[in-house]
Amino acid sequence: MPPLFNRVIIIGVGLIGSSIGMNLVRKRLAREVVGVGRNPANLREAIRRRAIHRFVRAQQRAPLLENLSEDDLVILAVPVKEIIRHLGLLTRKPLVMDVGSTKRSIVRAATRRKIRFVGSHPIAGTEKKGAAAGEIDLFRERICLLTPTPYCRPGDLVRLRRLWRALGAQVALMEAGRHDRLLAAVSHLPHAAAYSLVQTVSHLASVPEEVRFALGGLKGTTRIAASPPEMWNDIFLENRDFLLRALDRYRRDLGRLRSFIQKRNSRALYRFLREAQKVRLKF
Amino acid sequence: MPPLFNRVIIIGVGLIGSSIGMNLVRKRLAREVVGVGRNPANLREAIRRRAIHRFVRAQQRAPLLENLSEDDLVILAVPVKEIIRHLGLLTRKPLVMDVGSTKRSIVRAATRRKIRFVGSHPIAGTEKKGAAAGEIDLFRERICLLTPTPYCRPGDLVRLRRLWRALGAQVALMEAGRHDRLLAAVSHLPHAAAYSLVQTVSHLASVPEEVRFALGGLKGTTRIAASPPEMWNDIFLENRDFLLRALDRYRRDLGRLRSFIQKRNSRALYRFLREAQKVRLKF
Repeated sequence: MPPLFNRVIIIGVGLIGSSIGMNLVRKRLAREVVGVGRNPANLREAIRRRAIHRFVRAQQRAPLLENLSEDDLVILAVPVKEIIRHLGLLTRKPLVMDVGSTKRSIVRAATRRKIRFVGSHPIAGTEKKGAAAGEIDLFRERICLLTPTPYCRPGDLVRLRRLWRALGAQVALMEAGRHDRLLAAVSHLPHAAAYSLVQTVSHLASVPEEVRFALGGLKGTTRIAASPPEMWNDIFLENRDFLLRALDRYRRDLGRLRSFIQKRNSRALYRFLREAQKVRLKF
Repeated sequence: MPPLFNRVIIIGVGLIGSSIGMNLVRKRLAREVVGVGRNPANLREAIRRRAIHRFVRAQQRAPLLENLSEDDLVILAVPVKEIIRHLGLLTRKPLVMDVGSTKRSIVRAATRRKIRFVGSHPIAGTEKKGAAAGEIDLFRERICLLTPTPYCRPGDLVRLRRLWRALGAQVALMEAGRHDRLLAAVSHLPHAAAYSLVQTVSHLASVPEEVRFALGGLKGTTRIAASPPEMWNDIFLENRDFLLRALDRYRRDLGRLRSFIQKRNSRALYRFLREAQKVRLKF
């Protein structure tokens, strides 16, 4: 089978970028894989781990990006704001894909610039960072949501589906607005809840000596609060409107629970817990 | 080594009761282990699993409990309200221990009745129920908090320490009020947060089809919402005052996070997330 792409440019060779690159290089899904980044030590590590064939420093990226052909793919694996900034450096020739956690603003910017763009969100990751954290199986049995835009071609979607399947992921198509609304509920709100819970517990108890009494409950509930704050700062602000609505609903539900406890309304309290348990057991 | 106790009466042969019993019987920590319960099938399962030697039906327990000696131990492994009810059936002869998740009301009731009582809270458990769920290693490398009361004797604490150590647990002494305040923060609040989060997510998304997009984050954050609602209903109402204070603090912290997002105050938002991440990494 010929490679899916001629050249693939990975902008941002972090956890996600390098994990994609490891698949591209080792499974020969592209003729050449070029990493673009600011940190030479990280880029060298990416070569060492066979995540890219060679690299170009960020300050030298302009000529590389200007001379891409229609068989090339650009993967924007940087934070959302930088994704949008990079869209300004790209021509309409190569296929362009991001891997950001929110989709509306990116899709809007790409469409405005008439870029041949497909948004993608591989729902995978760890708390780790950098090329050294890359894993060839990071996407195996994960879901990747694809968001087509008006200037991508029908064949583009077919090739990107094949790419993600080659990485082991299941692919689903989803409109950008629906993506952001859904992710606010099932991902961004749980992160907001976990970060806040750590803040609260650390005020109420002298963590960490006392947290050893908590067993797995607290630890499991707050595991995702170990995620990189710079990333979640961006996601929370990018998906502000949907997240604010989700937070308001959550504070209202906590308020309901509080009032059942306050009024010693055991029947309503039990029903609240029982309903939640039923839903949770279906996850 | 002679057994630690002559007879041990386990009232309530569920997950915790049967797990203690399996250790008592198989490690010969007592001459005889008698289960008391309402469900004969469960009690027979406890015998089959060698968690008790024999059983007495709940309605026949009075003569058993009235004729205990000073070398006997009663373990109250039932919900808090039933623990308090059982204290009324006991004489001042045997050593009595509970395994409840809150301590103030139990310790108060036992002290009022001048019972030879030590509160205990083994911080261990699974979502499963009944004697069939018992595990001999349930307490291994767990912590058990002991709450002495005025009518227990110095030797009692020594023996109970030895008992819990024989089960593999680490033992720590803690005053009942401090126990309840601490557990409100590190256990009861996380449970309240998890149950509420499931309520919210199930309103915002069509769970469970869509929850598969959430990866581990939501699942980890809400795992403890699969816990038995009847148990948590009791705990929340028993520890009402401390839990209400913890819930208020949590809602305030969520409100702070909300306002940083609403005002697009990236600096304050980043600091909030960073602080939480730092604390969480120490857990």
